[in-house]
Amino acid sequence: MTASATVDDQLAHYSSLLGPELESYLPRCEPDRYLYRLLALSVGRRGKALRPSICLATCAAFGADPRLCLGPAVALELVHDAFLVHDDIQDGSERRRGHATLHADVGVPLAINAGDALATLSFRPLLDAESRLGSSLTARILREFHHTILTTIEGQAIELGWRKDNVCDLGLDDYLGMVLRKTCCYTTIHPLRVGALVGTRGRADLAALTRFGFFLGAAFQIQDDVLDLTSGPGGYGKDTDGDLYEGKRSVPLVHLLAQCRPVERHALVQFLRLDRWQRTVEAVDWVHALLVAHGSIEFARNVATGISRAATESFDCAFRAVPPTRDLEFLAALVDFVVERSS
Amino acid sequence: MTASATVDDQLAHYSSLLGPELESYLPRCEPDRYLYRLLALSVGRRGKALRPSICLATCAAFGADPRLCLGPAVALELVHDAFLVHDDIQDGSERRRGHATLHADVGVPLAINAGDALATLSFRPLLDAESRLGSSLTARILREFHHTILTTIEGQAIELGWRKDNVCDLGLDDYLGMVLRKTCCYTTIHPLRVGALVGTRGRADLAALTRFGFFLGAAFQIQDDVLDLTSGPGGYGKDTDGDLYEGKRSVPLVHLLAQCRPVERHALVQFLRLDRWQRTVEAVDWVHALLVAHGSIEFARNVATGISRAATESFDCAFRAVPPTRDLEFLAALVDFVVERSS
Repeated sequence: MTASATVDDQLAHYSSLLGPELESYLPRCEPDRYLYRLLALSVGRRGKALRPSICLATCAAFGADPRLCLGPAVALELVHDAFLVHDDIQDGSERRRGHATLHADVGVPLAINAGDALATLSFRPLLDAESRLGSSLTARILREFHHTILTTIEGQAIELGWRKDNVCDLGLDDYLGMVLRKTCCYTTIHPLRVGALVGTRGRADLAALTRFGFFLGAAFQIQDDVLDLTSGPGGYGKDTDGDLYEGKRSVPLVHLLAQCRPVERHALVQFLRLDRWQRTVEAVDWVHALLVAHGSIEFARNVATGISRAATESFDCAFRAVPPTRDLEFLAALVDFVVERSS
Repeated sequence: MTASATVDDQLAHYSSLLGPELESYLPRCEPDRYLYRLLALSVGRRGKALRPSICLATCAAFGADPRLCLGPAVALELVHDAFLVHDDIQDGSERRRGHATLHADVGVPLAINAGDALATLSFRPLLDAESRLGSSLTARILREFHHTILTTIEGQAIELGWRKDNVCDLGLDDYLGMVLRKTCCYTTIHPLRVGALVGTRGRADLAALTRFGFFLGAAFQIQDDVLDLTSGPGGYGKDTDGDLYEGKRSVPLVHLLAQCRPVERHALVQFLRLDRWQRTVEAVDWVHALLVAHGSIEFARNVATGISRAATESFDCAFRAVPPTRDLEFLAALVDFVVERSS
């Protein structure tokens, strides 16, 4: 079985575990039209459920019943949806997962509120976890989850701040520091740590898992940067060249800003200073062509591949003593999956 | 000492207890410019700290050291600030507490993110409360707090939905159902319940406190509706006639819609259909004059007074067996204070 088939297969398995539990945390009551229907809409259009799957897989790989980890897994999916709803408002994105974004559909005020509700609801499965996990482990996981959310918000602040102030002198280290906070912490590091905490009742080597999570998450995000520029319309479910319209400091853009000629850089900085609605198709196409000409997309692909190699090494260290299972195979296969995926 | 002097005096006392603890929950680290400085700015301009004060006073009135309740009190102030930041974006408000609102200052994306951070941070003092309160009471308070936040978000959804769909056939019962969720739950009911839970280690009559909290909170909100229409510029710290610019379904507006002549109602419904930026000073002045002419502001004052009488009765029931203290006197004086205050 190829890495990709293993991943798809296991993702479907974890999703089938997750689905009913996730459903049970979406209130079906009033106010329906202005709140809970909007949440069901957002969560119902969920993607791969990557974060909960990493959590369930890690728990199972360490030998425990993955259902023990359903609370933390649901919490992750709900807070991910909360982030997406607010991200889309902040970025002015019109499309997500092939549909209109929530604020494009119901307006910014109700969408901000729906995001707040999802973030609040994300705590509930953890408050309920005590009967499965005991009070001490539950309190520990609540603290880790809380720290994870706040770290993600810090990463988001940095990224939004760079765009607001049109910061253009960024290196790969700045990018990785931001992505560690914004993406890795909740996408990979927290799911791995919590899966291990539950799977081993607190005896896992969390430092090694954190390193693996950082490399895996960074490779994932950089591939995301690449996919934004290389997926045709519709294929990726988001706006094409969406990051360029949003002025996102992606690895390709950071590379281009450092590599292009002064006259190009001057025009690029002007482009980045514009508001999203001022960016024309022609200007975006020009930046895209510049990224191709300067090898910036290729550079990002190479960075992702290099980081994925570091992920493989740290995987071996983190899961050294763990016997082979489908769950472990899934976690190993994720490394290739995140840099080879096309959506 | 008058009711108002008692309230002011005790508010200052509770604020002095709250201040250092609140400060200790505001991170002083990076990202400073794009996140933590913005939080300090919002929280630093805090108002009366009414919610934490009710919490501390109730705990003390039931005979416990109010400092036991500092965690829940800080949580309330932080989540209140989180609500205000997102409310101001949703309402398009430019002024708050005599200053530019956060989004007017730094833009909507960073302000949404700062609100998310405040909401997240509000859980931290409760996660830390175990050493003071024990694990069982802490878990109980966490669940009450979580329920309170979600209920507030439900109330906000209803109010935003009414404005979005220009719902004009509302009665006082609809208004009170919304205000119970949006205002009372976190402003009065939760502070009273948690103060009592901590103060009595769980033996208080929470149902009686909930009734008192509902009447007190509703009187507070209706007086807020009145103040919005009667405070001169600057006096109230917000935009003058801000609720009219926002199209808020206040008690005076609900009364006016039911009482005015058909031709006036038709024009009023047209006015309410406009976006905020389309509402002119002249049109707002016209609605204001209509409210005066139909006695709608006077009607709201009378409703607030009537509800405050019910609050006094339920206060006597809730605190029947509690010995007289400055803290109890403060809680009793709040009833007159909320309907007599001018800011």
